[in-house]
Amino acid sequence: MTESNSTPANPGAPDPLERGDERVLDPSNLEEERHALQLRFEELLEAGADEAVRDLALDLSPGDLSEILRPLSVADTTRILGLLPPDPLAEVLSEIDNRSLSTLFELLDNEEIADIIEEMPSDEATDVIGDMDPEQAEEILAAMEEEERGEVAELLRHSPESAGGLMGKEYTTCLETDTCGKAVALLRSLEEDDLEETHEVYVVDNRQRLVGSIPLFKLLIAHPETPAIEVMDGDSLYVEVDLDQEEVASFFRTHDLISVPVVDHQMRLVGRITADDVLDVMEEEATEDISRLAGVSVAEFGEQSAFRVARSRLPWLLGALAGQLGAVMVMGHFEHSLQAKLALAFYIPMIMAMAGNVGIQTSSVVVRGLATGEVDFYRLGRHLLREFGTAILTGLVIAAGIFTISFVLETDLALALVLALAMMLVVIFAAVVGSGIPMLLHRMGVDPAVATGPFITTANDVASMLIYLGIATVLLSLGHPAP
Amino acid sequence: MTESNSTPANPGAPDPLERGDERVLDPSNLEEERHALQLRFEELLEAGADEAVRDLALDLSPGDLSEILRPLSVADTTRILGLLPPDPLAEVLSEIDNRSLSTLFELLDNEEIADIIEEMPSDEATDVIGDMDPEQAEEILAAMEEEERGEVAELLRHSPESAGGLMGKEYTTCLETDTCGKAVALLRSLEEDDLEETHEVYVVDNRQRLVGSIPLFKLLIAHPETPAIEVMDGDSLYVEVDLDQEEVASFFRTHDLISVPVVDHQMRLVGRITADDVLDVMEEEATEDISRLAGVSVAEFGEQSAFRVARSRLPWLLGALAGQLGAVMVMGHFEHSLQAKLALAFYIPMIMAMAGNVGIQTSSVVVRGLATGEVDFYRLGRHLLREFGTAILTGLVIAAGIFTISFVLETDLALALVLALAMMLVVIFAAVVGSGIPMLLHRMGVDPAVATGPFITTANDVASMLIYLGIATVLLSLGHPAP
Repeated sequence: MTESNSTPANPGAPDPLERGDERVLDPSNLEEERHALQLRFEELLEAGADEAVRDLALDLSPGDLSEILRPLSVADTTRILGLLPPDPLAEVLSEIDNRSLSTLFELLDNEEIADIIEEMPSDEATDVIGDMDPEQAEEILAAMEEEERGEVAELLRHSPESAGGLMGKEYTTCLETDTCGKAVALLRSLEEDDLEETHEVYVVDNRQRLVGSIPLFKLLIAHPETPAIEVMDGDSLYVEVDLDQEEVASFFRTHDLISVPVVDHQMRLVGRITADDVLDVMEEEATEDISRLAGVSVAEFGEQSAFRVARSRLPWLLGALAGQLGAVMVMGHFEHSLQAKLALAFYIPMIMAMAGNVGIQTSSVVVRGLATGEVDFYRLGRHLLREFGTAILTGLVIAAGIFTISFVLETDLALALVLALAMMLVVIFAAVVGSGIPMLLHRMGVDPAVATGPFITTANDVASMLIYLGIATVLLSLGHPAP
Repeated sequence: MTESNSTPANPGAPDPLERGDERVLDPSNLEEERHALQLRFEELLEAGADEAVRDLALDLSPGDLSEILRPLSVADTTRILGLLPPDPLAEVLSEIDNRSLSTLFELLDNEEIADIIEEMPSDEATDVIGDMDPEQAEEILAAMEEEERGEVAELLRHSPESAGGLMGKEYTTCLETDTCGKAVALLRSLEEDDLEETHEVYVVDNRQRLVGSIPLFKLLIAHPETPAIEVMDGDSLYVEVDLDQEEVASFFRTHDLISVPVVDHQMRLVGRITADDVLDVMEEEATEDISRLAGVSVAEFGEQSAFRVARSRLPWLLGALAGQLGAVMVMGHFEHSLQAKLALAFYIPMIMAMAGNVGIQTSSVVVRGLATGEVDFYRLGRHLLREFGTAILTGLVIAAGIFTISFVLETDLALALVLALAMMLVVIFAAVVGSGIPMLLHRMGVDPAVATGPFITTANDVASMLIYLGIATVLLSLGHPAP
């Protein structure tokens, strides 16, 4: 252990199949190492070499193993997991997709499943049981040992997207009358698995209400006889159990936290959240925002069936198609104008695309800004003003662009002026709609990312055609539109 | 301290201006509380009540204060910060935007600035100095005390987006020959500020090479005479100093880490990264991906000048305009067809918008999938196949939609069939381009989020016009296109 080249993780190792202690994949070469291991697993499974499969799986850290299993088929994943003993299996399970999980559970009886779930941290056990159908969840809970059952049953009562849904029950408390020595003795009585996620000891009164917290380093340097309340942080931070997970994440970021206690409305300590769970929340929330802006569903990440993906995308696409019907009907309304001046039609894509681009830019900035706190309820007016100013400036430049392009191509000054004016107005309209709709949704208490995409696309398409063809018809004296 | 209603943080407090210990804003009612405090600050500044301003600022946690200051003007921010003593000021500074920071620093001499920066954690001090112009950075460094200067100078050598750019120098090491009691004694000799970010003691050999790490809880429960190497995790995880920050974040998530040691290529310990820094990285990377997909710049978040925002958005918009020129020219090429059948023009928006929607859906899924690891180099082929299947299925449904709409509106069976066929092909083309281009960029080593938006938009607009008008001209026998 004293030679650097015998250190266990050894990320520079060229052979991804090397054995030894539990190994960790080189984070700078993950894709390649994972792929090599995926191929190796498939090869061994094909050859029926169950023992070699188990050795290989046990050799990997649970985090790496779950990443490697992700792209494998449900059948292969289930076979590999079926070979593992309950303890490492429990660590992998919370990262496995639901279909592999239920296929695996079909192979096991409730007693076996309960044994595995008892090994999991309480928050992850709750996630797994929460995803089961209620009947099976009941049965598994009944088969679990009393302590773990009680914890999971309590955690199941909270929304999975709240602080209560994120928190675990693995924490240590001491009374405000205890000494530091007593707090250390309490820690000593715990199992190492539970200690691993312990970063502080919480001090409570005799009604379990949170009074403060003691970071472990303070216990290390304190004299055993010192009263706990003398070394604790009395102004320690906490969150309430029903706080939304997005707000939990933002609380962690604002205060640079590693873990935080969770209290109920009577200030009673009910759990704790650690930063690693918050990392997952942030990942999830960012994927959700991107998905919603793009009109796809979060469920399709990792989904391999084209049928299921198509089914999840179609509502959005058909909604957009219906919205487009409005644009078609606007153009039908202006049929005479288009017949009188066909060149008008050529610039429809340019006008519409620019409305779309500006709409996406402005709405993404608001949606992301609301998520990160750059934009909020009280700054909506100021933000709208900024976007309005931006739209006038960009509109002027783009209008000059389309004026030049169209004048060169068509040598028709009147048309070029109409295009420039229409472009200017369309850009301003798209910016106001693109920033305004998500703000309006936020004010109404609706997540702006949900409805932003389709609303804005449709509104901009229809309005840009009305503005463009309306201005052209009036200014180029192309006659009254058809009735 | 024994009554729950006298607990210090007291998040349910209705009056946001209540005094007492350092207070923390209620995370479930942040926008409102922050806004009230912003107004209060502006009011007090207007009244010239400097002392009240300072009291109010000192009353808030540094995290909350920096969030409250964000929307205030540079002048107001600078005035408030100028009233604070170096210690709380240092904690707020790393969260303040660059313009407020440089305005504040203009009011101070280098000696004063150095005093403030010395109070900051080394990673944050490095970020602040790294953002200065090189000459000022030199001067500040020269004015700093030797120990802090050495740390910051070393950290400045690493790319801000690498593990070296994220890491701090606040960690404790013991030798592999030390006992646990010695490790605790080493911790006792540190200042409390440095201990706050300490979650483990690193064990090194006599050449500073990382041998293992001891979580604090193990030191608490170990006997003082136990050798450190007996309680340490020998297979502890670490990252190398030049690992990209996005990969550091993914390493934290895979292995559920709270902190990780950073080593150089000789395995020598050079720093440590904590989960709170990784939370910031994830926030930053997600904002970057969303911004790039939407064609906006990360710099515009928090930017209040419409002029600067317009300048950052215009390149993208003008690029899209130039791309649109292609679509205009395609339509000019098919002028005869459009003249022969004007109804063709009405459906251009529908076809183009659908190409745009499918392009955004497919490219966002690839870009996000590459960021989270759902899609990787070795799974590109499989993902492309999935998208191809999805495109055929969604294409069929949308083609049926446009067939029905156009047949009802135009009662022209041939036109309806042409539209259905063109829609089908356009959806498939857009899906292949939308998934293929980001994959190709990834293979070429380019961040796919950077170039995806403009490329895909332009390719889809031009190609969808070519496909649609080409099919219509041939199948409806509208004569040869113009030369």
